[in-house]
Amino acid sequence: MSGARNLSAALRRARVPRPRIALRPTCSQTPQATAARSFTVSSTVRADREIKFTSDAYPNVKRNPNFAELTPEHVTYFKELLGSQSAVIDGVSTDAGDDIEPFNSDWMRKYRGHTRLVLKPQSTEEVSKVLKYCNENKLAVVPQGGNTGLVGGSVPVFDEIVVNTSRMNNIRAFDQASGVLVADAGVILEVADQYLAERDHLFPLDLGAKGSCHIGGNVSTNAGGLRLLRYGSLHGSVLGLEAVLPDGTIVDALSTLRKNNTGYDLKQLFIGSEGTIGLITGVSIQCPPRPKAVNVAYFGLESFEQVQRAYLEAKGQLSEILSAFELMDGRSQRLVQDSTGNKQPIEGEYPFYCLIETSGSNAEHDMAKLETFLENVMGEGIVADGVLAQDETQFQALWRWREGITESLSHLGGTYKYDVSIPLSELYQLVEDCKQRLTEKGFVGDDDSFPVRAVVGYGHMGDSNLHLNVAVRRYDKEVEKAIEPWVYEWIQKRQGSISAEHGLGIAKRDYIGYSQNETMVKLMKQLKNLYDPNGIMNPYKYI
Amino acid sequence: MSGARNLSAALRRARVPRPRIALRPTCSQTPQATAARSFTVSSTVRADREIKFTSDAYPNVKRNPNFAELTPEHVTYFKELLGSQSAVIDGVSTDAGDDIEPFNSDWMRKYRGHTRLVLKPQSTEEVSKVLKYCNENKLAVVPQGGNTGLVGGSVPVFDEIVVNTSRMNNIRAFDQASGVLVADAGVILEVADQYLAERDHLFPLDLGAKGSCHIGGNVSTNAGGLRLLRYGSLHGSVLGLEAVLPDGTIVDALSTLRKNNTGYDLKQLFIGSEGTIGLITGVSIQCPPRPKAVNVAYFGLESFEQVQRAYLEAKGQLSEILSAFELMDGRSQRLVQDSTGNKQPIEGEYPFYCLIETSGSNAEHDMAKLETFLENVMGEGIVADGVLAQDETQFQALWRWREGITESLSHLGGTYKYDVSIPLSELYQLVEDCKQRLTEKGFVGDDDSFPVRAVVGYGHMGDSNLHLNVAVRRYDKEVEKAIEPWVYEWIQKRQGSISAEHGLGIAKRDYIGYSQNETMVKLMKQLKNLYDPNGIMNPYKYI
Repeated sequence: MSGARNLSAALRRARVPRPRIALRPTCSQTPQATAARSFTVSSTVRADREIKFTSDAYPNVKRNPNFAELTPEHVTYFKELLGSQSAVIDGVSTDAGDDIEPFNSDWMRKYRGHTRLVLKPQSTEEVSKVLKYCNENKLAVVPQGGNTGLVGGSVPVFDEIVVNTSRMNNIRAFDQASGVLVADAGVILEVADQYLAERDHLFPLDLGAKGSCHIGGNVSTNAGGLRLLRYGSLHGSVLGLEAVLPDGTIVDALSTLRKNNTGYDLKQLFIGSEGTIGLITGVSIQCPPRPKAVNVAYFGLESFEQVQRAYLEAKGQLSEILSAFELMDGRSQRLVQDSTGNKQPIEGEYPFYCLIETSGSNAEHDMAKLETFLENVMGEGIVADGVLAQDETQFQALWRWREGITESLSHLGGTYKYDVSIPLSELYQLVEDCKQRLTEKGFVGDDDSFPVRAVVGYGHMGDSNLHLNVAVRRYDKEVEKAIEPWVYEWIQKRQGSISAEHGLGIAKRDYIGYSQNETMVKLMKQLKNLYDPNGIMNPYKYI
Repeated sequence: MSGARNLSAALRRARVPRPRIALRPTCSQTPQATAARSFTVSSTVRADREIKFTSDAYPNVKRNPNFAELTPEHVTYFKELLGSQSAVIDGVSTDAGDDIEPFNSDWMRKYRGHTRLVLKPQSTEEVSKVLKYCNENKLAVVPQGGNTGLVGGSVPVFDEIVVNTSRMNNIRAFDQASGVLVADAGVILEVADQYLAERDHLFPLDLGAKGSCHIGGNVSTNAGGLRLLRYGSLHGSVLGLEAVLPDGTIVDALSTLRKNNTGYDLKQLFIGSEGTIGLITGVSIQCPPRPKAVNVAYFGLESFEQVQRAYLEAKGQLSEILSAFELMDGRSQRLVQDSTGNKQPIEGEYPFYCLIETSGSNAEHDMAKLETFLENVMGEGIVADGVLAQDETQFQALWRWREGITESLSHLGGTYKYDVSIPLSELYQLVEDCKQRLTEKGFVGDDDSFPVRAVVGYGHMGDSNLHLNVAVRRYDKEVEKAIEPWVYEWIQKRQGSISAEHGLGIAKRDYIGYSQNETMVKLMKQLKNLYDPNGIMNPYKYI
């Protein structure tokens, strides 16, 4: 390709060291999620440690005495209702043993409930009957999809019944002309995306957990993920929903129309409310055509100021083809290197790294735009060094340096995770300030006597969304107290959000006031009471 | 440009008549709205006719006796509260004369209320005090922006107080890095877009009324417009709202964050609810970078099947740069020709015309994509003839063939307007069926004894959104009865929407059931009662 020559020439003219940029013709398909991209719990490292009960970790949270205790009679009702043996995991009438534990605890091994009953309805009607019965009998419920959440929102605290959507996993319809997909809530995101890939379309959401998470869970938590800057929020792309209210009412708002201005857009209330007012059973979503060309570049940069400059250049020059602009700090990349043993894509150490992805319909045009961008950012010294994926393997490999951070951190022990929105100019300052604070308090060190191993920052630069991760050798109340509520106050001062995309769950139940004013919280409670007067839906969480 | 040669060669190879395609280097800016693009009421044609009172046109709608009658004391309170003389148009204590009429009736001269008081608060606090007082005194209110709506939603029916946002017209903030604009609800859409143009950004909404409509009105009606297929729905692009509830509560959800998952996304309820639960006072919206290159092409096509093929080709080949795909039938274009006296862009008559716009960051790439697309659709005989705008003037001229339809229709007398969503394959069938039905009933003809002049179809093909317009010499109940509810039944059978983007207002108050099931309507009423127990906000409309 002539582009390779042009780029080199331009870089020579700019008299900067020639980067190890290798042009790839283009990737024939968008990223297929592979096993490596989904997160897995490193059981070898963690299985030695019992997961603490959430009820012990949050002693101020008490079981609501208005809720009934489960009886064998309740279980009999559910067994008759759902029929199939695989639809009920019964720890009430029998000893469910280890079968029930995966539904009680989260993959981070941070939250653990006491449920003794898991229900897996297979249809919206079954969900309706389950919730109606629970509501009438004051039985608390936790809706659960793939259980990949990060804030303890999808696991019980006490003995709430888990209603899991894994058996509602049919693609209901896809229209090639409009690109609208209609599917059950329990369809795994990756399955939906692969179905769409075969039809030249793309699910407008992608995230590390795609191999396990359910699209119903994605919608109920308003998942953001890797390509929000390109494909927008689920509030825009979800065209319709089917959901069940606590009293069993089926809300059929499963429109497949791109435009439908006939009254209040009630489905929006279920997007991001984390299963506290209803259980989503079906999703209708606008899916874009699958890009024909996808490119990924990975850079090292000398300062956060340069990262900001690179972002603005990318926004201006890559514009409509920019599909991801991810930020990783040096520490996060060394962690991935340590845990995978892989060689870093570029030599030398930099305080910051970026991953830029473009997705478009014309490989040659995209490459030309990317070359111009690279000439610019390297010529002006914004980017110090960089590589461009040459084939699908390299494409996946580069992405793993971003997506592998979560798993690499999990090898270190526990992680205090903060997922925040902050104005771009101060995005990384939070990591610096947090590191300084914990260091001053004597918590950070290389030997095992220090609770904190590392303070790491990465995230979705294009969305002003930072993931602050404090990797600890063990969960430690003193460390937690040093971070919280300090971190929330820091964010509040900058009008940021204490939860950009992870939601509130139980982890942030007491901190909503840092991002929402009293009126908003009051209005939320009013809605919660309207739809769920008995409070049975996902109790003990943020509302 | 080499592209021009390639295109001609390809077309010769395909042995189709060479179209009069003239390549333009590119437009240096995106379409600036000009006066010609905003609609104007053709007063010379229509002023001879008094506008019928809505209360007479809808005799089944009765004034709610629970509402108080306005007294001079009420007016005194408002005058003291709002201070400025220009803030109150008082037809209660004095004779407001013609001053009040523009606030009582819509630009289509179809709906007319009996208000005797117009208030123009200048701040959110003033709106809060106005609504609180109205709520306590059971005074009904109609929120009004630019009053450019098409369904009678922004004018009173009886003596409701008009609360107009025209004096709340400040841009509050714009952040160049994130592209987030924060502005008062009363900012005119075109003013906002011009402000953004000077800062290399674009308001993610464009519509014919942009010279008059307010962004608060756009949001409260969930306006769709010309480029929804590119920039998405306001449910996705609006990041935050400030609104006032009927009891005076200020809902401050004016977040500027792209991601903020901290509880229910309450602002969504105000988007598209047409001022029935609150009055929007401020908007925060994500604005994309202004495209550096914009191209427009205009085609003639022989059948609706060809239009569908052209759309699928455009979606596939123009993909990320496609910013509009508009459909106009032959009749609509002859009307524009008749009313403007302009020569049609292409010779010959076709049953269908399309306008395609691309917006991108690289003029050369966009032109190459467009050429490939043109070679394809003309080579395969999908498009019969076409032109490509060569400069800004031609760009504007081509757009006027689409945007001028509304005004051209207004010269003919009245128009029954239906704005519907229908699955793509049947989109135009509604126009054919409607024409046949009205013809069979003897309503359609060229001489003045026939009530119907023309049945016209056009719209946003890319959004499956058709505008069915029945142009009449005079509004006629018999014609209306022949169309309604037949048209709604037609749409219901196809799971379409009886209002894609115009909303329900009073025009479709009785027809919501054709697009929403009983449960949804019940849930909407429940929310209406929650926020507006006295029912003072925009009464007599669809809820």
